[in-house]
Amino acid sequence: MTKLDPGLIERLQGHFGARFSVAQAVRDQHGRDESAYPMTPPDAVVFAESTPDVQFLIQQCKAFKVPVIAFGAGSSLEGHILAFEGGISLDLSRMNQILSVAEEDLMATVQAGVTRNQLNNEIRHTGLFFPIDPGADATLGGMSATRASGTNAVRYGTMRENVVNLTVVTAQGEIIKTAQRARKSSAGYDLTRIFVGSEGTLGIITEVTVRLYPQPEAIAAAVCSFARVEDAVNTVIQTIQMGVPIARAEMLDGLTIRAINQHSKTSLREQPMLFLEFHGSPQSVKEQSETVQALAKDFGGEDFEWAHQTEDRNRLWMARHHAYFACLQLRPGCRAVTTDVCVPLSSLSRCIQETLEDLSQSSLQAPVFGHVGDGNFHCLILVDPASPAEMQEAERLNHRLVERAISVEGTCTGEHGIGRHKMELLRDELGEPALELMRSLKRAWDPLGILNPGKVLI
Amino acid sequence: MTKLDPGLIERLQGHFGARFSVAQAVRDQHGRDESAYPMTPPDAVVFAESTPDVQFLIQQCKAFKVPVIAFGAGSSLEGHILAFEGGISLDLSRMNQILSVAEEDLMATVQAGVTRNQLNNEIRHTGLFFPIDPGADATLGGMSATRASGTNAVRYGTMRENVVNLTVVTAQGEIIKTAQRARKSSAGYDLTRIFVGSEGTLGIITEVTVRLYPQPEAIAAAVCSFARVEDAVNTVIQTIQMGVPIARAEMLDGLTIRAINQHSKTSLREQPMLFLEFHGSPQSVKEQSETVQALAKDFGGEDFEWAHQTEDRNRLWMARHHAYFACLQLRPGCRAVTTDVCVPLSSLSRCIQETLEDLSQSSLQAPVFGHVGDGNFHCLILVDPASPAEMQEAERLNHRLVERAISVEGTCTGEHGIGRHKMELLRDELGEPALELMRSLKRAWDPLGILNPGKVLI
Repeated sequence: MTKLDPGLIERLQGHFGARFSVAQAVRDQHGRDESAYPMTPPDAVVFAESTPDVQFLIQQCKAFKVPVIAFGAGSSLEGHILAFEGGISLDLSRMNQILSVAEEDLMATVQAGVTRNQLNNEIRHTGLFFPIDPGADATLGGMSATRASGTNAVRYGTMRENVVNLTVVTAQGEIIKTAQRARKSSAGYDLTRIFVGSEGTLGIITEVTVRLYPQPEAIAAAVCSFARVEDAVNTVIQTIQMGVPIARAEMLDGLTIRAINQHSKTSLREQPMLFLEFHGSPQSVKEQSETVQALAKDFGGEDFEWAHQTEDRNRLWMARHHAYFACLQLRPGCRAVTTDVCVPLSSLSRCIQETLEDLSQSSLQAPVFGHVGDGNFHCLILVDPASPAEMQEAERLNHRLVERAISVEGTCTGEHGIGRHKMELLRDELGEPALELMRSLKRAWDPLGILNPGKVLI
Repeated sequence: MTKLDPGLIERLQGHFGARFSVAQAVRDQHGRDESAYPMTPPDAVVFAESTPDVQFLIQQCKAFKVPVIAFGAGSSLEGHILAFEGGISLDLSRMNQILSVAEEDLMATVQAGVTRNQLNNEIRHTGLFFPIDPGADATLGGMSATRASGTNAVRYGTMRENVVNLTVVTAQGEIIKTAQRARKSSAGYDLTRIFVGSEGTLGIITEVTVRLYPQPEAIAAAVCSFARVEDAVNTVIQTIQMGVPIARAEMLDGLTIRAINQHSKTSLREQPMLFLEFHGSPQSVKEQSETVQALAKDFGGEDFEWAHQTEDRNRLWMARHHAYFACLQLRPGCRAVTTDVCVPLSSLSRCIQETLEDLSQSSLQAPVFGHVGDGNFHCLILVDPASPAEMQEAERLNHRLVERAISVEGTCTGEHGIGRHKMELLRDELGEPALELMRSLKRAWDPLGILNPGKVLI
């Protein structure tokens, strides 16, 4: 059943008791994420409840040279948490304590297993909020490890900008804190930013301090339909270029809207659409929205509709966050190859346009939507993972898209990360010498290669 | 005169001609920065004009195991560019070309020797600007290498948030680009952020792509006097906590104002003062400034005075940027030990208060000013560098201040960097295991230790 050394099993059982499991169901549950990869379970699962728990596990796995794969909500999209080389899945979801909320400092420190919704629910009474919102209700540890973002990044930044410090257990089994709690610092190498986006390959994140923001005095959301995707996109690009501090600017194509209508029981017009949100003082929100409404009109936008009530707004963004699952239901039983390029704004419209032409000639369905204010968009290529022909076609489309993005100085992943799936694309993007720097960092910090092996770097 | 190997000298003369110099005057000029260290000149100076120039130099210095110290404007404050272990000063100031301005993308790519004022002068016609403004007219390469910030960071972030990518020559003599030009990316380890703040110890930055911002439609600046430093500070803290997107919020104590009056021929009231600036639409600027004016009044602020005209504003900020030099002139012939702590906002007021008490009991003069919206402030401890007693007293004050900052989860340097001067304080701040991670990164990327040795890490 499992290949683990009996000596290691004994030590882990001794320390973790029932929180160490080799049960097939538990292993299977930790052997899949939201990617199209087949199930790839670990040899065992450990449920950590503290940083010392993680330290103990790492020390044992180091002694036995066994891989350790951090697991949060299991919502990654590129095979990050799959056990391609076996080993132990380290489930951090029980590390779900909010350790402190420093209201005056606009910061909170949480255990890595706290999810973004949990954090926002527990701090709502303070008048503060945490803006980063990938589609899934991911854990803050996982979001840090993949440098996640979401709909609010255009205004509030990504995890890169919003993680203040991390507590990390290194591959050597040491517990470190990457930085203090100052808003800025020039103190040495930026350990925080090295671990943000390292996908569990350089250390295990056990605690995260993030920035919080005052809930805006006023919020307004709106939707607007367009005849063509490029008109919607160009509306947003001009908004950004004018310096309007828009909080959310999401483009969804007609197929995505159809999926949302079916899934969320909405009745949105099934053509390209923008979902927008404005934050600020009542006066500033009014100004911003008037500016953007005028821009949208210039690009032929129709049916500009406001959602002023909190409930209406929540319904709108719930629908947006469920777009991924809604799209999956366009084809029952399918999985998605989610593309994730991000390009400079000047190339965004053309890049999306050429991608839509590509997709229109493919046999596969692929709804397109994205955080266009950042230059980031996704095609959800719906595949039957059991069909090699379909998987091959999906990969062909993804490769062409990434090539197109790289040719205009864009990236193969705006927010999902490299995982298992994009290791070659990372090399295509940055080149062998840059990759070799990353490899030498990995070798220096994890000489035995026990942390999430077979990910990020080839 | 110089200890360099004749073989190396021959190769460098062959490649660089007159751009290689061992003249004492040139070496001396590259042997001092704005710190209180005695002159510590390199063995030779090379003036690079291109990335391949830098690559050639690194390859030769690698072959001969000779230190290379990057030199920009020479305005560093902690001994960053001093040749404590000899070697070659690599002067990048002739790499002063603006390579491209991508207006639609809100980005510019420049050679490392371009200064912040040069960039802003050359892009003024585009309606865009680059906000990061340390006191000196530093180079973008130097600012990247020290993770610099300045008065605008409270709204626009630091170099950490505003560098999009870097071209770097590694210690192996490879030329790499750290990232593409997308606004966000999850593609592998964050090479950009590793080099930002690495102070020339991990690679030589030769090109920098930075974010630009639309010039605000409206700008208003103001000054306001307070009876006590803490009242000025608390006004700013409440401003931040209310989410007012203030662009600049600088506190200067009475002694600094006196120095400014003498140096800039102004007639500001010589007591604690805030210099403020608001950016946005006319309506938003009006709202922001009304809010802050009301807050200032609550804290006893007096003589709230507006600078609506561009000239008046420029005069104000010029005076602020010259504060460092103005303060030096309080005591002719002195040098400054500039402290640079940055603490969480909740501790800022108390931290400044205790520091002022400390200073009031010292024999040394020390004007205090800072970017209080970020929790960052400086005491310019004015010393006669030839007096061991004074230097010792300055160090005592600095150490007490850093200890105080660390005890409230602050940092020993908000924006100046570690350089030579704060290596022990970095260890005090982050601890030995974190420092060992940094050391192992350094060893992995610069195994011969030729890049700016004797800095950052002990």
